Amino acid sequence: MDYFRAGRNTLYCEGVQIERIADKFGTPLYIYSQRSFIDRFREIKRAFSMLNPLICYSVKANSNLSILKTLVKEGAGLDIVSGGELFRAKKVKCPAGRIVYSSVGKTEEEIRDALDYGIFMLNVESESELKKINSVSGMAKRKVKVSLRVNPGIDPSTHAYITTGKKENKFGISVEKAKKILLEKVKYKNLDISGIHIHIGSQITDSAPFVKAVKKVRKLIVELARNKIRIRYLNLGGGLGIVYDKEKPQTAESFAKKIIPLIAGLKCRIILEPGRFIAGNSGILITKVLYLKDTPVKRFIIVDAAMNDLLRPSLYGAYHKIVPLFQRAKSYELRAKLVDVVGPVCESGDFLGKDRRLNVKEGDYLVVLGCGAYGFSMSSNYNSRLRPAEVMVKGNKTYLIRRREEYRDLTAKEYLI
Amino acid sequence: MDYFRAGRNTLYCEGVQIERIADKFGTPLYIYSQRSFIDRFREIKRAFSMLNPLICYSVKANSNLSILKTLVKEGAGLDIVSGGELFRAKKVKCPAGRIVYSSVGKTEEEIRDALDYGIFMLNVESESELKKINSVSGMAKRKVKVSLRVNPGIDPSTHAYITTGKKENKFGISVEKAKKILLEKVKYKNLDISGIHIHIGSQITDSAPFVKAVKKVRKLIVELARNKIRIRYLNLGGGLGIVYDKEKPQTAESFAKKIIPLIAGLKCRIILEPGRFIAGNSGILITKVLYLKDTPVKRFIIVDAAMNDLLRPSLYGAYHKIVPLFQRAKSYELRAKLVDVVGPVCESGDFLGKDRRLNVKEGDYLVVLGCGAYGFSMSSNYNSRLRPAEVMVKGNKTYLIRRREEYRDLTAKEYLI
Repeated sequence: MDYFRAGRNTLYCEGVQIERIADKFGTPLYIYSQRSFIDRFREIKRAFSMLNPLICYSVKANSNLSILKTLVKEGAGLDIVSGGELFRAKKVKCPAGRIVYSSVGKTEEEIRDALDYGIFMLNVESESELKKINSVSGMAKRKVKVSLRVNPGIDPSTHAYITTGKKENKFGISVEKAKKILLEKVKYKNLDISGIHIHIGSQITDSAPFVKAVKKVRKLIVELARNKIRIRYLNLGGGLGIVYDKEKPQTAESFAKKIIPLIAGLKCRIILEPGRFIAGNSGILITKVLYLKDTPVKRFIIVDAAMNDLLRPSLYGAYHKIVPLFQRAKSYELRAKLVDVVGPVCESGDFLGKDRRLNVKEGDYLVVLGCGAYGFSMSSNYNSRLRPAEVMVKGNKTYLIRRREEYRDLTAKEYLI
Repeated sequence: MDYFRAGRNTLYCEGVQIERIADKFGTPLYIYSQRSFIDRFREIKRAFSMLNPLICYSVKANSNLSILKTLVKEGAGLDIVSGGELFRAKKVKCPAGRIVYSSVGKTEEEIRDALDYGIFMLNVESESELKKINSVSGMAKRKVKVSLRVNPGIDPSTHAYITTGKKENKFGISVEKAKKILLEKVKYKNLDISGIHIHIGSQITDSAPFVKAVKKVRKLIVELARNKIRIRYLNLGGGLGIVYDKEKPQTAESFAKKIIPLIAGLKCRIILEPGRFIAGNSGILITKVLYLKDTPVKRFIIVDAAMNDLLRPSLYGAYHKIVPLFQRAKSYELRAKLVDVVGPVCESGDFLGKDRRLNVKEGDYLVVLGCGAYGFSMSSNYNSRLRPAEVMVKGNKTYLIRRREEYRDLTAKEYLI
C-alpha cells in the first residue's frame, strides 16, 4: 500500500489530503502514517516468523509516544539507548520483558532505573560497563541478563557517522575479547551473560555485510558451545536500509532468507532492532515556500523549514526527495536551471536539498519525503526557532501527537538573573 | 583577565572552583563567566569608540536570557534572526531602537512583530523579501528602515557551512542588484532603504577578507552618493574569529585599525554584529568520564556529554580543547597512545574530540573549552537525552540560568492517542 500517494494535483497521507493537514496545523509540520508504521513492522515479523523473534523497535529513530504505543500494541518490543527512552517506554506501558537497552555510555542511574523496571536485557559495550552493571545489580540484588555487543570489524559502506561495526568505532567488543569475557563469565556473579549482539550500522541496503557479520558471530557461538558456554540470545541489531532516492534496498523477506539459514541451527532466541526500516518512509516533513531568490549563480527556494527541523542534509549530506504539493508546469528556464531548497537559518549549511528541479511559487507547499526517522528526533531550537508539530494520520482522521512549540517554551527553563 | 584559569590541580571560573560547580549542578553542564562577556563586549566598544557604533550582539551564538540582559545593560543592541529571538530581546527589555533583524527567511508574522515592536532596522536578503516588508509595513502604516545585505563574493577561508559571503551562498544581494534597487528605491514607498549590510562568514581570523569586502561596499556607497543616494548606515556584520586551538586571531583593536580608515569618510553610522567573539571563550562545557574503553585500535574516553549537547565537532569537524580538571601524570603508555573523547549517543559521529592525549580515570571531570558560542544554542534532545543546565559565574557566586531538563519535559508537548 502507498501511504503517501499522489492524487489529482495533490498528495494524500492515507485517506487525508496533505494540503488540508498543512492548512490546519501550519508548517513546518511532520506528518506520519500510522498504517505505514504497522505494515512495516508486520513485514519484518512475517519475514522472520519461523524464528518468532523479539522485534524491538529502535526508539531513537522516532520516539513520539503515539508511535511507540502503536508499535507496542502490535507486539513490538523497544530498543532504548537512554534513561529518557526508558521513560518513554514506561509511558506507553511497554512490557519490561520486551525492552533491550543499548548505549556505550549508560550512567549508573540509568542502569539502576532499567533494573528497577526489570527490562529484558542490557546490551553491553565494554568491560568497564560490564563491571559497572555487575556492581549495580549486586546492590539491587537481582541477576540481570546481558548480551555482549561484538564489533565484527566490518565496513558496511554507509555514511561514516552511522557506521558502527568497524574496528575504529567506539562500539562493541572485539570477538577475541568477547570470547575471553564469556570464558570467565563466572567472575560477574550478578550477571547472566547469555547474549551476543551485533549492530554494524544504519541504512545498509545490501545483505552482504550482514551475512559476513552473522557468519563471524555464528563461528563464535559454535566455538563457545564447544567450551560449554551457551549463548541463548542472538541480537542482530538494526540497519536495514530504505529508499530515499534510487536505492534498491533488500526487502525484509530477502534479508530474512539470507540470514535465517545462517542462524537456524544455533538454538538462539533472535532479537531484531529495526528503526529506520519501520519509521523512515512512514513520515514526511511539509514546508511552505517563503521566498524565491534568483542570484547570478542559482535560484534559491527559501522555505519555512530549516536544519533545526531536519538535520540530516546538513549533518550527513543526506538526500531527501522534495516534491511540490501542487505540480506547476516546468518552464524552459527551470528545466535548464537547478535550484537549492534552503531554510531561514543563518548558515550556509542550512539546506534541505541542493541542485533540484522544482517549479514553485511563494506560498506553495513542498513535501520532504522519508522524514519519519531521524527527523523530529534530531530537531533543535537553533536560532531560537520553534520545533514543529507532529501529526499522525489514521485512515481518514488526523491527530495532533505533539503540539508546535510556542515562544514561551523557549525560555520556560531559564532564570533571569 | 583570565576568566577560566588554572589553580593548583584545579580550574577556576572567575572566583569559583569549577569542580564545586560541577558537583553541585551535575554534568554535563555549561558554565559561563559573566565578566568575560562584558569584557569582550567592551573590547569591541573601545576599539571602535571613535565611531560610536551600534554594537548588536548576535543572539544566535548564545541566547540565554541572562547573557542577553548582561550585554543589554552594558549598552549592547541585539542582532536577531527569528521571531523567537525577538521574543527573547523583549524579555530582557532591549530597547527596540537597538535591534537589527537579519535572516533570509523572515515570515510575514515575524516581520509584523518586529514592526510592532519598532525595531531599528531590518537587514534584507532578497528582492522578494523587500516586497514583502514593503507590503507588511504598508498595512502597519509605518515606514521602516531597511539595509540591503550585499554579498561581496568573497571567500573568507572558514568552514563551508559558516561561509556566507560567497556568490554561491544563499545570503545577500549582488553589488549590481543592490545598486539597481537603490536607484529605484522610490518604488518601495513604505521603506527607508538607507543601510548597507555585509556579513561574510564566521570564525574569520584574518583581516584581509574583511578589508576586501569593506572596500567593495565603500566603492558602492561612494558611487551611490554620486547618484544622490545617501547610505546612512553601514552594518559590518560579525565574523571575528577566536582562539579554539592555535589560531592567532586579530584583536578587536587591530581589526578596528584596519577598518576605520576605510570607512571614516563615508559618514555612515556603523553597526557591528559580534557573536562568537563575545561568547565563544566566555563558556565551557564540563562533563564526567563514564567509562574508559580500550580497543585493539585505540582508547575511548566515554563521557556523559554528547553531540546533542555540543554539535560543533560532529557538524563542522570543529576542534575544542579538552582538559582534565585534575591533572594526572601521563603514563608512558598514554603519551604513546591517542584517545578519542566520545559521548553515549549511538552513532560514530558522536565525538567531542579525536586523537587527544589525556590521562583520566572513570569519574574524573573533563572541561571542553570554547563552548560559549554555538554550544547550548545548537543542543537537541537526540536519543531522548536531557539538555544540560547552564550556570553563570559572577565573581564568587554561581547562578543557575537554565535548569537541567527532566524526563517529563521530553514528553510534555506530546499527546498520546
